[in-house]
Amino acid sequence: MFMKKKRPSLKDIAEVLNISTTTVSFVLNGKGAEKKISKELIARVETYLKEINYKPNLVARSLRTGSTRVLVFMVEDISNHFFSKVGRLIEDICYKNDYRVLFCSTENNVKRTQELIHLFHERQVDGFIIVPPPGIEKEISYLLENEVPVVLFDRKIPELEADYVIINNYEGAKQSTQHLIDSGYKNIAFITIDLDQIQMHDREAGYRATIENAGFEPQILKLPYNTSNVVASREKMKDFFKSNKNIDALFFATNYLSQSGLKAIHQIDPQLINKLGIISFDDSGFFEMYSPTISAFAQPVDEMANQLMKILLNKLKNKEKPKPVKLVLEGTLVERESSSKK
Amino acid sequence: MFMKKKRPSLKDIAEVLNISTTTVSFVLNGKGAEKKISKELIARVETYLKEINYKPNLVARSLRTGSTRVLVFMVEDISNHFFSKVGRLIEDICYKNDYRVLFCSTENNVKRTQELIHLFHERQVDGFIIVPPPGIEKEISYLLENEVPVVLFDRKIPELEADYVIINNYEGAKQSTQHLIDSGYKNIAFITIDLDQIQMHDREAGYRATIENAGFEPQILKLPYNTSNVVASREKMKDFFKSNKNIDALFFATNYLSQSGLKAIHQIDPQLINKLGIISFDDSGFFEMYSPTISAFAQPVDEMANQLMKILLNKLKNKEKPKPVKLVLEGTLVERESSSKK
Repeated sequence: MFMKKKRPSLKDIAEVLNISTTTVSFVLNGKGAEKKISKELIARVETYLKEINYKPNLVARSLRTGSTRVLVFMVEDISNHFFSKVGRLIEDICYKNDYRVLFCSTENNVKRTQELIHLFHERQVDGFIIVPPPGIEKEISYLLENEVPVVLFDRKIPELEADYVIINNYEGAKQSTQHLIDSGYKNIAFITIDLDQIQMHDREAGYRATIENAGFEPQILKLPYNTSNVVASREKMKDFFKSNKNIDALFFATNYLSQSGLKAIHQIDPQLINKLGIISFDDSGFFEMYSPTISAFAQPVDEMANQLMKILLNKLKNKEKPKPVKLVLEGTLVERESSSKK
Repeated sequence: MFMKKKRPSLKDIAEVLNISTTTVSFVLNGKGAEKKISKELIARVETYLKEINYKPNLVARSLRTGSTRVLVFMVEDISNHFFSKVGRLIEDICYKNDYRVLFCSTENNVKRTQELIHLFHERQVDGFIIVPPPGIEKEISYLLENEVPVVLFDRKIPELEADYVIINNYEGAKQSTQHLIDSGYKNIAFITIDLDQIQMHDREAGYRATIENAGFEPQILKLPYNTSNVVASREKMKDFFKSNKNIDALFFATNYLSQSGLKAIHQIDPQLINKLGIISFDDSGFFEMYSPTISAFAQPVDEMANQLMKILLNKLKNKEKPKPVKLVLEGTLVERESSSKK
C-alpha cells in the first residue's frame, strides 16, 4: 500500500513528465478528456502514477471536491451495548456502500458535542448520525441550514425539521408495565435516570399512565446520570430496594440500569431475583444466560441501523432537499421467565 | 457556536480591516508579536475575529501545522464490551488532554484496516492506537518509518520494533486452568476461535501446558471467527457439549464466547450451569448478576487505557524517537461461584 516515505507533489510529477502541474491535476481528477488532454498524454500520466504507486492527498482532495466518504455516528456512550451494537450494524452497511464510519461519545455533554460537530464539519465528513444531547439544537440547526446530511437517532428535537429514527418509547413502557400488571404484580417500581431527555420522559410517562390507570401508585427512583460512578448508583438502588420492601416488580428504563440493578439485588440476596418481577428496557445477549431469563422491551436494532443508513444514503445521493423522514419504530416485548406470574 | 452560514475567508477579513491577508494569518496563528505586528493592530484583528465569531478552517490549519489533535483507536469490533470499555476510558483521558478520539472496527479484515490507516494518515490524525489484525505489518511499519505515533494494543507484532500494551495471555490461561484443576475438575474444555492471532495462540498454549502438566487430556473447540453469525456458533457449542458428556468444566477464551456459551448451556439445560466449572477470559459486569456468579480472568482495563495514553501522549510531546515501550501487564483471576468445588 505504501511505497515512498514522502508523497510526491503534483510539481514533482509534472517535472518528471515534463508537463504542467495543471495537466497532472486534470488527469488525477479524471478530467483529462473534458479538458481536451490527448489520450496518449493521459495514458502516460496514469502509467507513471501507477508506477510510483501514487496516492492522492485526501485532505487536499476533500478541500477540492468537498467529499470524504466518511460518515460519523455520534452516540451518548460507545461502551453502552445498545449504541455499540447499532454502531456495528451501521459500520457494515457503510462499508458495503463504500463509506467509512467513525464513532465517538458525547457523554450527553453539550460542549463536547458542539466541539465534535465543529471538528467533523470542518474536516468535511459527508454526513452525520447523531444521538442529540439536550441543548444541541443550535448546532444541529446550523448543519441543516448548510444542507449537511444529518439524521437524528434515539431522540428527536421537537422544534427542528430534521430526519430522525426513534422508537415509540411511551408505548414500549406502557406494554412492559401492563405486562407486569397482567402477571399479578401490584407494586411496580420504575428505575430511571435524572436526565432531561425526551426518550426518558416518554418512558416514564408510559409507565406512570399505565400504573395510574390500574389504580396503583407510581414508585420512581431517579438516579443521577454519571457513567463513571456505577458503584454509587448501585448503592442508591440497594437503599431504595431495602427501604421499599413492598416493591414486587422492577422496570428498568435502560440496559445499563438493568445490569447495575440486577447486581444490586444479587448483593442484597441471591434469591431475590426469583421473587421479583423484572423487565428491562433494551434487550441484551446476557439476559438468556441464566434462570430466570430476563424479560425485555427490545429495540429493533437491525431495523434502526437499516433505516438510519437508508435515510442518510438517500440524502447523500439526492442533492435536492426532500421532506424530512420521521420514523417512529415499534419495539417488541420479549416475555421471558423474570416477568411471569410468581 | 455557529453564527454565519459561510465562514469569511482571510481575504474577506483583510478587506474589512484594510490590512493584508498575511497580517490576518499571522495574528490568527498567534505569530503577531513574532512577526513584529503592533499590539494595537493585533488587538484590532482579534476583536474583529471575536465580533464575527470567526472559526478557523481546521482542514486548512491542519494542512499548515500538520496537527489535528485527533487520535484514532482502531479495534477489532467496537461492539465487543472489552474494546468499547477500553475505548470509553481512552476517550476520557483524551478529552482531559485536549485531544479528540475516533473509533472504528477493523473486523480483523486486513484490507479494511489498510484503508482505514491510509484514510487517517492522509487526514493527518496525530496518533494511532491499533489492535492489529494479522497481515497488517507493512502498514504499521510504514507509519513507524514516518514517525507517526502508534501504539499497538491487545496484540504485538513480534517482527516490529513498535510500542505495545498487551497482557500476559499465557499466564492468564495457565492460572485459570490451574484454578479449575485445583477445584477438582478433570475434563476441562477450552472454547476458542480459529484465528491466527498471537494472543489466542498464547491463551491456548497456557491452557494446553497446564492440562498436560496435570496429566489430563486437552479438549479444544475452535469456532470460526464470524461476528455476524452468533447462532451458528452457539449451535456448534451445543453439539460439542452434547457429544462430549465427560466435560466437567469450560474455559472460554473471550467474553463473547462466554456469552454465547452460557446461552448454549442454558438452552441444553437451565440447571447445567450449576454442574459445570466455568471461567471466562475477560470479565463482564453481567457476571455478578445471578447465582452462580461467573469466574473470570480480568484484563486490567483501567491500567491498559492509562498506559496506552501515557505512551501515546509521551510520543506526541517528544519529537525525538525514544526506545519503544513494550508493556506486558498481568491480569487478575477473579474467583467467583462458577469455578468453586462442586
